[in-house]
Amino acid sequence: MNFLEEKILLEGSIKEGNILKVDCFLNHQIDIDIMRQMAYEFKRRFRGVEVNKILTIEASGIAIATLLGDLYDVPVVFAKKSVTANSTDDKYMSQAYSFTHKKMNNVFISKPYLNATDRVLIVDDFLADGQAAHALIDLVHQAEAKVSGIGIAIEKGQQQGGRILRDEGYHVESIAIVESMDWETQTIKFREQPVLPLSNPKLSIG
Amino acid sequence: MNFLEEKILLEGSIKEGNILKVDCFLNHQIDIDIMRQMAYEFKRRFRGVEVNKILTIEASGIAIATLLGDLYDVPVVFAKKSVTANSTDDKYMSQAYSFTHKKMNNVFISKPYLNATDRVLIVDDFLADGQAAHALIDLVHQAEAKVSGIGIAIEKGQQQGGRILRDEGYHVESIAIVESMDWETQTIKFREQPVLPLSNPKLSIG
Repeated sequence: MNFLEEKILLEGSIKEGNILKVDCFLNHQIDIDIMRQMAYEFKRRFRGVEVNKILTIEASGIAIATLLGDLYDVPVVFAKKSVTANSTDDKYMSQAYSFTHKKMNNVFISKPYLNATDRVLIVDDFLADGQAAHALIDLVHQAEAKVSGIGIAIEKGQQQGGRILRDEGYHVESIAIVESMDWETQTIKFREQPVLPLSNPKLSIG
Repeated sequence: MNFLEEKILLEGSIKEGNILKVDCFLNHQIDIDIMRQMAYEFKRRFRGVEVNKILTIEASGIAIATLLGDLYDVPVVFAKKSVTANSTDDKYMSQAYSFTHKKMNNVFISKPYLNATDRVLIVDDFLADGQAAHALIDLVHQAEAKVSGIGIAIEKGQQQGGRILRDEGYHVESIAIVESMDWETQTIKFREQPVLPLSNPKLSIG
């Protein structure tokens, strides 16, 4: 069990309707220690991957994206969800359905903030159906930039987003993957994650 | 001229309608170096002030709040702007008019994340009429917590928010205060900020 799975067991709860409530440390109140550990864990898992920009979507992804930007020392961009009055520039636009808010959101980034030379690490707090991730990928491709990887705090493994993204060839790393959860018994099962062999280990396990 | 005033001159622009556009480093793309410097500057300006929670409002305040939470090693809470479907707990609720989006927002925090023992440093990217800041103060008071201070990246000194908050007795620190700006000439004037005498200086200026 890793630090995030442990934190979920300690402080999360399951609500009716397949909702994992973790807003005491992840997406309303932010536990800085957990966020820092996530940033280090993403950096470890994406070792050797070229990254010169961190991309997320407002609002819950911004905290982890900021600490990851701090660790990589690269700019962070957060995609916005609605056209604001003081934003009249050219934008890359996409759409994502929000199951939480039950509506279709426009998702956009002002063009100057994504470029063809960008190697983008996309991060977000949750991955379920992959709507937000696919919108962000779409924006990256519109800018002719490249997706270096997708880092997720909690993946809902019962939903299809993670499988689809991996089938499409993206390098997806989710720190905790919920295989199943049960509201009535408040039980949760995490997917075992394979420890990938290193490409150039200095030592081998004897 | 401090680092943020310099950054505004270098990379900001003035748009028609009294809009200072700084989304290349502050509220769309995030320049991590500037954010880090802001966190250190707030910590310096609020030296000696008790802080055990950082509070902001989604979305643009989250990046600076996160780095400040990292520096103080305390939890960060961001107030949300609309009632989400997966949030049914008791909440502290307030309201703030958004001039950017031209609508009244509900602003809320789930009750467990603000407590009477909290000494709250409120931070945000902008202060104009003080709508958001007053909503956050209202939430802090509903929880019977105390406002330790209010840290703002850019205060629009032509608007009344800063003056009202200071008149109310709050310790407001704005890293850059725009005294006036002119769209046609693209000129901006910052307010001179007094260097406050330290309460217990070890050395004096001879």
